Amino acid sequence: MLVVMKSHATAEQIAAVCAQIERLGLRPHPLPGAQRTAIGITGNQGEIDHSSLSELSGVTDVIRVSKPYKLVSRYVKEDDTIIHFPGTDITVGGRDLMIIAGPCSVETREQAYRTADAVASAGAQFFRGGAYKPRTSPYAFQGLGEEALLILSEIRERTGMRIVTEAIDQDALDLVADYADVIQIGARNMQNYSLLRAAGRKRKPVLLKRGMSATLEELLMAAEYIMSEGNYEVILCERGIRTFADHTRNTLDLSVVPAAQQLSHLPIVVDPSHGTGKRDKVLSMARAAVACGADGLIVEVHDQPDRALSDGAQSLYPEQFAQLMREARQIAAIVGRSLPGNARGQVAAQEEPVNA
Amino acid sequence: MLVVMKSHATAEQIAAVCAQIERLGLRPHPLPGAQRTAIGITGNQGEIDHSSLSELSGVTDVIRVSKPYKLVSRYVKEDDTIIHFPGTDITVGGRDLMIIAGPCSVETREQAYRTADAVASAGAQFFRGGAYKPRTSPYAFQGLGEEALLILSEIRERTGMRIVTEAIDQDALDLVADYADVIQIGARNMQNYSLLRAAGRKRKPVLLKRGMSATLEELLMAAEYIMSEGNYEVILCERGIRTFADHTRNTLDLSVVPAAQQLSHLPIVVDPSHGTGKRDKVLSMARAAVACGADGLIVEVHDQPDRALSDGAQSLYPEQFAQLMREARQIAAIVGRSLPGNARGQVAAQEEPVNA
Amino acid sequence: MLVVMKSHATAEQIAAVCAQIERLGLRPHPLPGAQRTAIGITGNQGEIDHSSLSELSGVTDVIRVSKPYKLVSRYVKEDDTIIHFPGTDITVGGRDLMIIAGPCSVETREQAYRTADAVASAGAQFFRGGAYKPRTSPYAFQGLGEEALLILSEIRERTGMRIVTEAIDQDALDLVADYADVIQIGARNMQNYSLLRAAGRKRKPVLLKRGMSATLEELLMAAEYIMSEGNYEVILCERGIRTFADHTRNTLDLSVVPAAQQLSHLPIVVDPSHGTGKRDKVLSMARAAVACGADGLIVEVHDQPDRALSDGAQSLYPEQFAQLMREARQIAAIVGRSLPGNARGQVAAQEEPVNA
Amino acid sequence: MLVVMKSHATAEQIAAVCAQIERLGLRPHPLPGAQRTAIGITGNQGEIDHSSLSELSGVTDVIRVSKPYKLVSRYVKEDDTIIHFPGTDITVGGRDLMIIAGPCSVETREQAYRTADAVASAGAQFFRGGAYKPRTSPYAFQGLGEEALLILSEIRERTGMRIVTEAIDQDALDLVADYADVIQIGARNMQNYSLLRAAGRKRKPVLLKRGMSATLEELLMAAEYIMSEGNYEVILCERGIRTFADHTRNTLDLSVVPAAQQLSHLPIVVDPSHGTGKRDKVLSMARAAVACGADGLIVEVHDQPDRALSDGAQSLYPEQFAQLMREARQIAAIVGRSLPGNARGQVAAQEEPVNA
Repeated sequence: MLVVMKSHATAEQIAAVCAQIERLGLRPHPLPGAQRTAIGITGNQGEIDHSSLSELSGVTDVIRVSKPYKLVSRYVKEDDTIIHFPGTDITVGGRDLMIIAGPCSVETREQAYRTADAVASAGAQFFRGGAYKPRTSPYAFQGLGEEALLILSEIRERTGMRIVTEAIDQDALDLVADYADVIQIGARNMQNYSLLRAAGRKRKPVLLKRGMSATLEELLMAAEYIMSEGNYEVILCERGIRTFADHTRNTLDLSVVPAAQQLSHLPIVVDPSHGTGKRDKVLSMARAAVACGADGLIVEVHDQPDRALSDGAQSLYPEQFAQLMREARQIAAIVGRSLPGNARGQVAAQEEPVNA
Repeated sequence: MLVVMKSHATAEQIAAVCAQIERLGLRPHPLPGAQRTAIGITGNQGEIDHSSLSELSGVTDVIRVSKPYKLVSRYVKEDDTIIHFPGTDITVGGRDLMIIAGPCSVETREQAYRTADAVASAGAQFFRGGAYKPRTSPYAFQGLGEEALLILSEIRERTGMRIVTEAIDQDALDLVADYADVIQIGARNMQNYSLLRAAGRKRKPVLLKRGMSATLEELLMAAEYIMSEGNYEVILCERGIRTFADHTRNTLDLSVVPAAQQLSHLPIVVDPSHGTGKRDKVLSMARAAVACGADGLIVEVHDQPDRALSDGAQSLYPEQFAQLMREARQIAAIVGRSLPGNARGQVAAQEEPVNA
Repeated sequence: MLVVMKSHATAEQIAAVCAQIERLGLRPHPLPGAQRTAIGITGNQGEIDHSSLSELSGVTDVIRVSKPYKLVSRYVKEDDTIIHFPGTDITVGGRDLMIIAGPCSVETREQAYRTADAVASAGAQFFRGGAYKPRTSPYAFQGLGEEALLILSEIRERTGMRIVTEAIDQDALDLVADYADVIQIGARNMQNYSLLRAAGRKRKPVLLKRGMSATLEELLMAAEYIMSEGNYEVILCERGIRTFADHTRNTLDLSVVPAAQQLSHLPIVVDPSHGTGKRDKVLSMARAAVACGADGLIVEVHDQPDRALSDGAQSLYPEQFAQLMREARQIAAIVGRSLPGNARGQVAAQEEPVNA
Repeated sequence: MLVVMKSHATAEQIAAVCAQIERLGLRPHPLPGAQRTAIGITGNQGEIDHSSLSELSGVTDVIRVSKPYKLVSRYVKEDDTIIHFPGTDITVGGRDLMIIAGPCSVETREQAYRTADAVASAGAQFFRGGAYKPRTSPYAFQGLGEEALLILSEIRERTGMRIVTEAIDQDALDLVADYADVIQIGARNMQNYSLLRAAGRKRKPVLLKRGMSATLEELLMAAEYIMSEGNYEVILCERGIRTFADHTRNTLDLSVVPAAQQLSHLPIVVDPSHGTGKRDKVLSMARAAVACGADGLIVEVHDQPDRALSDGAQSLYPEQFAQLMREARQIAAIVGRSLPGNARGQVAAQEEPVNA
């Protein structure tokens, strides 16, 4: 169910509709657009009395939505979702591409600083680095936990980059939401619905990775779980699917980018590092991702890939990342997008060299 | 790392070795076999001083294990794991097949009782019924929660069947471990490592479903997560994988049964209901599962499939389940297995008719 | 388009309808059933004038068929297709299971004889052995060609077994149709439509293997190509599909057996050798295939698998095949089927020992 | 086995080595490179006497090749294969991208002319159009056959574009090789080894499409079949693989482009039309293909897609193709490639309007 407000509806009228929806025992989701605000309604098992809403002032239409995904859908919100980062001019989902770079895991302060300075210099606005690592083996390195989150906070101070890091469970989520700027939900947890709901109750953007064998509809429904709790800032991420093909670790499914953008207003970024699993394919596929219209990239960079505790084989060297940024910038221009760069990070990196 | 005890090693000698392993800051996992006990060691990042263990009395050998899975492996424990259910003569992993039947979800007490009586009459020793349902849509029926667990407990009293139900997160896990006899971890959570570890700290058997796109090695590594926390009673479950084939909802991969049994001592059961998603394929595939050597079946049965709140299309009618039991019993005999039946449940069902 | 004849329609009436169909520039396909004969019509691009057919004597109904597959469909022919082999009491598609056994390739007369004697002794009624091998590498052994076909003919004389062998192109097809009893079309050629049409013009049964990534509908459409040319004796074969799973060479999709039997009247057999690619999984999956209702098995057997020029790793030892036959016979009885055995082959094998 | 010639080896010396290889009963494959010529040897089952070759004048080395693919490999030929089209300055595999455009099928002369004029105007140098169509159903439109080949020849005259069309069997191959400039082998025939060998005996370049479930190694081995017969002008083509993903008809696997280019010297082009099956994804994926380094594109264009007899849903409108060309040209420049355009075709199209 969707309440469409008139284009000149006031904030008070919108609030009044939301209040009425709550009075009906349902949940309102006001989703502002360029022309008008629409208010999604969730929680309805049965019929809703139309007239109790359509008669309210400022309401132009009340329509039934039959798709399984509602809040994620362009049907409910036609305009692209653009996410703003408070205290910065960084946006995601608009003209600027979101470039996220950094090591698979935060291993030591020195390693993280060196890589952060390198990617900031190259113009990244977002830094990634795992504090909690979902590993296939219980005996493999599982991340530094809160210690890593502290280091990531320092890197934000140091470089101005916003921090993206994964939450693997409820406990990690609480800490990640405190320290980081974007909460990552990994591919293995894409259908961990309790975690999705919990992330939906946080007020930080969520980067939601597509599960290894998830259809587009399942990805959108996972985003719907987050949005249904009131967190509307979800960034989708294609990171490769599992197929029979064995020349890459996963098969990067770039066609999901235009397909998602057609159905949903949410931004979608591409991870060519996990998407291929091989360093020598990352640049090609990063270019392809920008060319096909992705809203950003998330790339693994390590200053010493051969010594990485995890995923070294797919991590770029810093100079390769700098090349990726140059190429992405050129292709972005052709498809009507831009790479803003990270002025402050570049200065910081020059002024405060790390003692390696 | 694995410490192999002499065949006549005493309980004291085993305890002494475990104590020494703990003194080294590591974790001992004593795994008794028909001939001898082996003690798996986990927690070692680097080298271990062999002599501090090999010199202890009762020790015959200390060997290095290079496979990524350790405790699940036949290399560490050669004999089949047989799980006993206290206060019953029910076993899983031995000669008897584990037959689990029941509705997708516990919807009402009446529906659950009726289905339980029917499957108990047909000889099932385990009852399944979802209290917490992982649903693709946040707006779909999510299960009755603790109320369902109470109903399941009543069914155990009523029929003598042991209860199998899914835990979808930490909170549900605590309740499920209290009320049920077997904790189910669903396919979508197969790589929810925090949940696996938490299940490993419970002292109830865990039914671990293979993820939709999990390799056998990944399934075994998920079991390893549970075992690494000290819970050695894990039952693997094949429930269909995701492929291009569209004549069934998933592709039931029965060849994983002999493959898992070759690598691991853990029992493996088959879910032909999710494995096909279509009622009219369930009997065929149930027969096939028993014929290929599965240690059991988990089957959805509903007394009124057309009214089921979830997965009705794949639920058997009670009389179809009775036929399944007859056929499974005949085929079991050919492959050297048996179906024990549920004497008490059959009586209970006859004596206490449900008011429908 | 389908013309349904009355149950007592005479052969003359059927012939008259066929003649009328041909007069319309179309192709008639009379398909006799237990109750009545139906006549499929192919070749119609546009509309057909109903009355020119429905008025003919013996006709009860003329109906439109909208499914893409027509002649293969139970809609056109309700009863199971049963294939008889002239001069024998061997049937395929009826109560008896079709057991086909033999080496991947015919390598030498001695190897073929020894294996043939062994599988005939164990009761096989059909012998397989490749004369033309589709190999991934142009430099691998490609089969002995016509020399192999001659050896196969000798084996038919020697053991009474009927011969199944693959035709990889038009030239091979002509020879295979001359020498063999069943023409095999391999998985790689399942959509080689020119070859399918050519096989449809032969008058020998065709064993059609499912392509590695073929849906059930595509398999049925491939059979439709053969049938559309007038050859109605097609035997479908499941031989494993390509998926991400890596514990077997292919993933044997047994659920396609009941699914095919539901849609089509054609028999379907299972190849557990290619379906798993591993000798130690073949027996388990052969049992499962019979249990789920397959109309037969095609199994690779080699008297010295370690010396096989192709696919040795999946070939059974003769004594394993004898065990497979014993187990298949027991399970067949449970599902209402039987294994007829090969009396003459058994005698021949005892009387004429090969000089190994 | 590979004979490496000195960089200044003469044509006579190369011929002498080839003659000696033939004298040994083997087949020489001289593959010229920028620095030196290497001569691949095929046909050897066993050992070859090195000295009979290494002693010949002009030979610098004789080396053993252990990879299953030989002639396709960069190991045998380090430099990119560049294919020249006689009587034109068109090349494939060099700096210029190969742009192939046209309808799925040649339906009528008028339709073909109109589409050809449109794509020539937009700058395409190659025209595609099916004369023989491999269709899933035997009752679907199968192509106009030789009549279509004649129309395609006229289009070459009319526009200067080179012709690419599919051969589905031996008979079609002979005609296609006579009329067309590039012989296409379709995805369904990628492992039709008899057809590959026959194409290898023609002296026209072959466009080899990757099978729906072919690994990269299998694609390279299929190319090896063609090359082993002496036809070294093979163009690989990625056209989407079959996966579980359902938002596109196939999953376009662009990462195979850099992967193939690393292992092989052969050019590889991308088909975004079959690769997605949806018109509204074709432009995005065409841009991505050029960005990731593909050597060209093959695109379906139809002047009236809604009336197409096959694959209309994935065919571009002519104006969309013109946009694709503009975008591809810009991205090509960034990755060091170029789009040459079709000066003559553009003129022709302007001068000779079709009577529609």
